[in-house]
Amino acid sequence: MLHNPNTMIADSIIDSTIRDIFGNIAFQAQPEGLYDPLRYMISIGGKRIRPRLCLTTYGIYKNSLGPEILEPAAGLEVFHTFTLIHDDIMDHSPLRRGHDTVWKKWSEDTAILSGDVMCIDAYKRIAQAPASVLPEVLHLFSKTASEVCDGQQMDMEFEDRDMVSMDEYMQMIGLKTGVLLACSSALGAIIGGADPQARKCLYDYGYLLGLAFQVADDYLDAYGDEKVFGKPIGGDIVNGKKSWLTVRAYEKGAEGLLEAFSAHDIAPEEKIAAVKRIYDSVGIVDEARAEIHRLSEKAIAKAAEAGIDAAALSQLADFAHSLLGRSY
Amino acid sequence: MLHNPNTMIADSIIDSTIRDIFGNIAFQAQPEGLYDPLRYMISIGGKRIRPRLCLTTYGIYKNSLGPEILEPAAGLEVFHTFTLIHDDIMDHSPLRRGHDTVWKKWSEDTAILSGDVMCIDAYKRIAQAPASVLPEVLHLFSKTASEVCDGQQMDMEFEDRDMVSMDEYMQMIGLKTGVLLACSSALGAIIGGADPQARKCLYDYGYLLGLAFQVADDYLDAYGDEKVFGKPIGGDIVNGKKSWLTVRAYEKGAEGLLEAFSAHDIAPEEKIAAVKRIYDSVGIVDEARAEIHRLSEKAIAKAAEAGIDAAALSQLADFAHSLLGRSY
Repeated sequence: MLHNPNTMIADSIIDSTIRDIFGNIAFQAQPEGLYDPLRYMISIGGKRIRPRLCLTTYGIYKNSLGPEILEPAAGLEVFHTFTLIHDDIMDHSPLRRGHDTVWKKWSEDTAILSGDVMCIDAYKRIAQAPASVLPEVLHLFSKTASEVCDGQQMDMEFEDRDMVSMDEYMQMIGLKTGVLLACSSALGAIIGGADPQARKCLYDYGYLLGLAFQVADDYLDAYGDEKVFGKPIGGDIVNGKKSWLTVRAYEKGAEGLLEAFSAHDIAPEEKIAAVKRIYDSVGIVDEARAEIHRLSEKAIAKAAEAGIDAAALSQLADFAHSLLGRSY
Repeated sequence: MLHNPNTMIADSIIDSTIRDIFGNIAFQAQPEGLYDPLRYMISIGGKRIRPRLCLTTYGIYKNSLGPEILEPAAGLEVFHTFTLIHDDIMDHSPLRRGHDTVWKKWSEDTAILSGDVMCIDAYKRIAQAPASVLPEVLHLFSKTASEVCDGQQMDMEFEDRDMVSMDEYMQMIGLKTGVLLACSSALGAIIGGADPQARKCLYDYGYLLGLAFQVADDYLDAYGDEKVFGKPIGGDIVNGKKSWLTVRAYEKGAEGLLEAFSAHDIAPEEKIAAVKRIYDSVGIVDEARAEIHRLSEKAIAKAAEAGIDAAALSQLADFAHSLLGRSY
């Protein structure tokens, strides 16, 4: 139990708590072949955005961190990691955070079954929420979990289509990324004892932050710094994966986009350069930055409706800026 | 809400309730590509053993069936069906209950993601248990769910070994089959309001019944009637899949077993005949029948320690006999 003299829990305490949770997270020892992939996936890192957000909103209402929030917060990261293991099979991705993916390192069968048991492990942790709010916590978590699957399904269905509308695209990233950040933000509030209005506003804050984060990820995939981004730049373009940039450029009538985007008989660097020239021709960089900024400000405005004090609101604004700071 | 004048709920009411639950079970409509496989898997049938057992033990304590038990009971079947979808990918099984498996009918990606969302759907239903027992229900269900994965992992690891011991085999089927029947039986008792001693005994009753059921399944796979069993006889032998029969025959020192069992350059019917001759040489039919009988009687003896009345005990004995009646 960590204690903090103020109502809010300082970022430095959240940082050290997050390091502690994931440095010491325990999964069942046996059968090793089933649980080693879980330990591996947690060990290769990640920004732990979801548990960090959950602890941050919880800290607005409580000044100490016990298992009733630490376990659910860890469960959010465990659930997210489960989806990565299964997504990597479906997307045939060999690398994740610079390391072999589970199906690549072990096998597809291992990735399926280890993913399954990781989803169940997430539920074990979520179920450590206080009994008084457990039905509400579970309802929101399960609703979110199935929405994340809906989002992955939409994403896969989009691959078979020439183009999708911006509405469809935003709905997909809302499901695939937005709802889990929303749920993380709301769970901290629910377990912390926030009133219904605050829960709703903090849910919306997380959702909008998730949208901004995904647009930023799409932007950095094409225009980021490889060292900071952690994977080769241009991956979406090379793989013909529709992103916010593609959908927006198409919406703006960028000439030759579909042809350049679906080209197969061309070197990767040339394809990246060709598509980025088209993006640039319709001013996509400024558009994307403006959209990330707009969504981020909208998220913070939602948080401002939660009836929280100025220091808490400032902490949530800092969270948004630090999450998105590198991209706009 | 169905009402029954007696404390116990009659088998005929349970039968009609089960038909009603799975004839009208609702999954989300969209995206169709994600949820159609769930509807399909439920529609191709199954004996609904787990929800039936759950309603039966619940009926010992309560005389009406409301959503607080119907939803968790359905969740047990939904969870079991999720494991079948993923197991069928890992086992490369093209057929299930005489129909194409999900990966065969759609794709592996669809089977992975539809399985995932079906596991989450199971949790949504389990979470409808009354708030007063929800922490206990969830704890048992999640523990069980991860044990089922442990069992599948052991089963896959056994494939790479020449032989396993009877202890190892019983542990594997206990995890893969026993614990979910145990959980089904115990959840009915917990939600029905049974005392801790009864919960424990009814858990053990379900566990032992699960072991008996799996040994019976192994027996019928080699010696059953194809029309009753629902799939070709000898499948385990043809696929070199270790069963109770193999492990017991090996334990009894059956000569030539490993060679006959691992033969690849032989017609399926000949391999089946050769392995069954070896089984017969050590009297496996009588051994298997005696073991099914022993486990079934042990299950009923456990139920007798639950402090339930004679009529309820008789209903649980009937359940065991009707589940296993065809096999010994």
